[in-house]
Amino acid sequence: MSSGKILVAQGGGPTAVINQSLVGVVLEARRHHDVRLVYGARHGVRGIVDEDFVDLTQETSHNLELVAGTPASALGSTRDKPDLAYCQEIFKVLQAHRIEHFFYIGGNDSADTVRIVADEANKAGYPLRSLHIPKTIDNDLVGNDHTPGFPSAARFVAQAFAGANLDNAALPGVYVGVVMGRHAGFLTAASALGKKFADDGPHLIYLPERTFELERFLADVKATYERLGRCVIAVSEGIHDASGRPIAAQLAKDLEHDAHGNVQLSGNGALADLLCEEIKTKLRIKRVRGDTFGYLQRSFVGCVSDVDQREAREVGEKAVQYALWGDRDGSVAIERTGFYSVDYRLQPLEAVAGKTRTMEDGFIAASGTDVTDAFRLYLRPLLGSGMPDAFRLRPAPVPKVLKR
Amino acid sequence: MSSGKILVAQGGGPTAVINQSLVGVVLEARRHHDVRLVYGARHGVRGIVDEDFVDLTQETSHNLELVAGTPASALGSTRDKPDLAYCQEIFKVLQAHRIEHFFYIGGNDSADTVRIVADEANKAGYPLRSLHIPKTIDNDLVGNDHTPGFPSAARFVAQAFAGANLDNAALPGVYVGVVMGRHAGFLTAASALGKKFADDGPHLIYLPERTFELERFLADVKATYERLGRCVIAVSEGIHDASGRPIAAQLAKDLEHDAHGNVQLSGNGALADLLCEEIKTKLRIKRVRGDTFGYLQRSFVGCVSDVDQREAREVGEKAVQYALWGDRDGSVAIERTGFYSVDYRLQPLEAVAGKTRTMEDGFIAASGTDVTDAFRLYLRPLLGSGMPDAFRLRPAPVPKVLKR
Repeated sequence: MSSGKILVAQGGGPTAVINQSLVGVVLEARRHHDVRLVYGARHGVRGIVDEDFVDLTQETSHNLELVAGTPASALGSTRDKPDLAYCQEIFKVLQAHRIEHFFYIGGNDSADTVRIVADEANKAGYPLRSLHIPKTIDNDLVGNDHTPGFPSAARFVAQAFAGANLDNAALPGVYVGVVMGRHAGFLTAASALGKKFADDGPHLIYLPERTFELERFLADVKATYERLGRCVIAVSEGIHDASGRPIAAQLAKDLEHDAHGNVQLSGNGALADLLCEEIKTKLRIKRVRGDTFGYLQRSFVGCVSDVDQREAREVGEKAVQYALWGDRDGSVAIERTGFYSVDYRLQPLEAVAGKTRTMEDGFIAASGTDVTDAFRLYLRPLLGSGMPDAFRLRPAPVPKVLKR
Repeated sequence: MSSGKILVAQGGGPTAVINQSLVGVVLEARRHHDVRLVYGARHGVRGIVDEDFVDLTQETSHNLELVAGTPASALGSTRDKPDLAYCQEIFKVLQAHRIEHFFYIGGNDSADTVRIVADEANKAGYPLRSLHIPKTIDNDLVGNDHTPGFPSAARFVAQAFAGANLDNAALPGVYVGVVMGRHAGFLTAASALGKKFADDGPHLIYLPERTFELERFLADVKATYERLGRCVIAVSEGIHDASGRPIAAQLAKDLEHDAHGNVQLSGNGALADLLCEEIKTKLRIKRVRGDTFGYLQRSFVGCVSDVDQREAREVGEKAVQYALWGDRDGSVAIERTGFYSVDYRLQPLEAVAGKTRTMEDGFIAASGTDVTDAFRLYLRPLLGSGMPDAFRLRPAPVPKVLKR
């Protein structure tokens, strides 16, 4: 006899809309007669091996809707990246609780976990349906037009650069903003959507898809500063040299030679500070400011794309439909079907698991420091409605009296 | 014969609503028959001495309204802090252009500039009316219930901590967010408005109004971490030891002894990184993350308080009324008249110029690491309507099967 039990969990870095996917699963599951109990695991796979479950069947639809609109992972998340033994533990618990459908919301590592757990179930002949639901602000899942979570983070980055540009125009100087994304530059590239006028920043964008050369960077900054009297720069935290070595490590090493070393390389402001120091020292520009967007870009409450919300909800709903009406495991993927509309399909877990998508060449300008119109057209509809706009006073100069 | 000319300029750090005040001046002035020409100076006092004026009389009302809704200083700003000789240059230009009313939107330094220029005009017997219009995210102008620009920046900080708290609850650890405000802690204290549930962060708030002791800080963090398994901390960039020495300088010096020195002390991520390093090393907590809110907190496009917008507009309008219908120079001040309503009055320039307001004792909890309900009541209405809210799943634990 069927247990009618399903389990849902959230893994990896939280996003602004990951709870939409959770609630999509719960509400859709609750309308299926085959589902009797909807369990949630606290803190992802960690909560599964610890049998730390909550019964989501008891939560009201009303509160679920409110939770859906709240950023970050309501069930809690984990950074655990399970190996085979860990996945066998997961499977043991799923068996013990007679879970029939397993839904894991996360990135490519989470997809890999689902793949291994599904393998274990198959080998054991246990009737488990395993579904991966996409989520990542990095937008680096293969086989997806884009991933839930990315549009809202991209909107934050675009709005942040729109503001940084206005601030920099009011008090001119050089501004460096460091954006998340170690291997994929999508989020850094989103800074380009903060531009409106031709002379707006970001004037230069540095992506992990291109090799970073410090001398060329300094030459780019110098040229922009001489042309406009200011320069706004978007930098991915993942920029690296030709050998793939992170620039933060390289600059820190130079500093170490000067007895400044032991600088941390991630989760801090080091890269922005080091680049600013290079610009100040080598280009002798006085007003140079750096920000590291850090956790704000993924956790800020009140900057969310309505398109992202809707799609994050739908991937959760579709996952339940694929699980209950379908006959195979897989990962839900977003397909673009119009400008702008999407549909969903189920791709094999192997197609997504552990793989990383980076920006297509067609999205990066020949200069290597800008995006193409193809990227602008790709990203704009994802940012959703109500994007703030920036307006300027139009020139009407007054003749000088004293200094004619 | 009257020239009918007025001049407006914007000084100091931009805010989300400083253009509301500019447009308040322009639109109100344009409805007065005595005003023939409304000039704006580009980049504050720098543009005045350079005679870099634009004719705002030629700008459409429609575009002015759009500019009003755009953050940062549309006329451009400056960090110049004029001395007497500089102010005499300003006065010379005002005279040459036959300016009759001078409006300067800025903080306490800008008020001081207005005061000196007004003195020069008086001494010369030149009929100039000089008005200071308040603006600062630091909320540090005396004689004001609060200052335009602060509510929107406070809203950003509150929303940022609401999100950082959710993120930290999902992936537990220690989070340090460093907030602007060198002498006044209002903006850092605003982080408390991001709290909803009793165990929400920020759990600890460090203000420049209180002496910072590293050992006590570490003990506070340890106690919170042991109690909740996590800790969210708001820190003012201006925290200092009993002698007034900035903590960033002190920590950097300790590091220097370990040959890590020459760390920059402002406009960068150093303080957050140094505090995180202390927590990691001394408390042996693994997941410690630090963000420096930097320019995002004052320039982010799309996080603005409607109350702030309205009041920033009104201080501009009132300044023109005081100038044209009144008979004295002064600084426009906001007075709270109800919960919630305000009125405006004109205070003498000397009362504001060069002075700094800090947080009242009644706003700071006895522990020194939290705010009081008096502060919550003070700040809440300023944040405006539509504040995002956070919701949780309610506990409904499932009995364990394997680990009973």
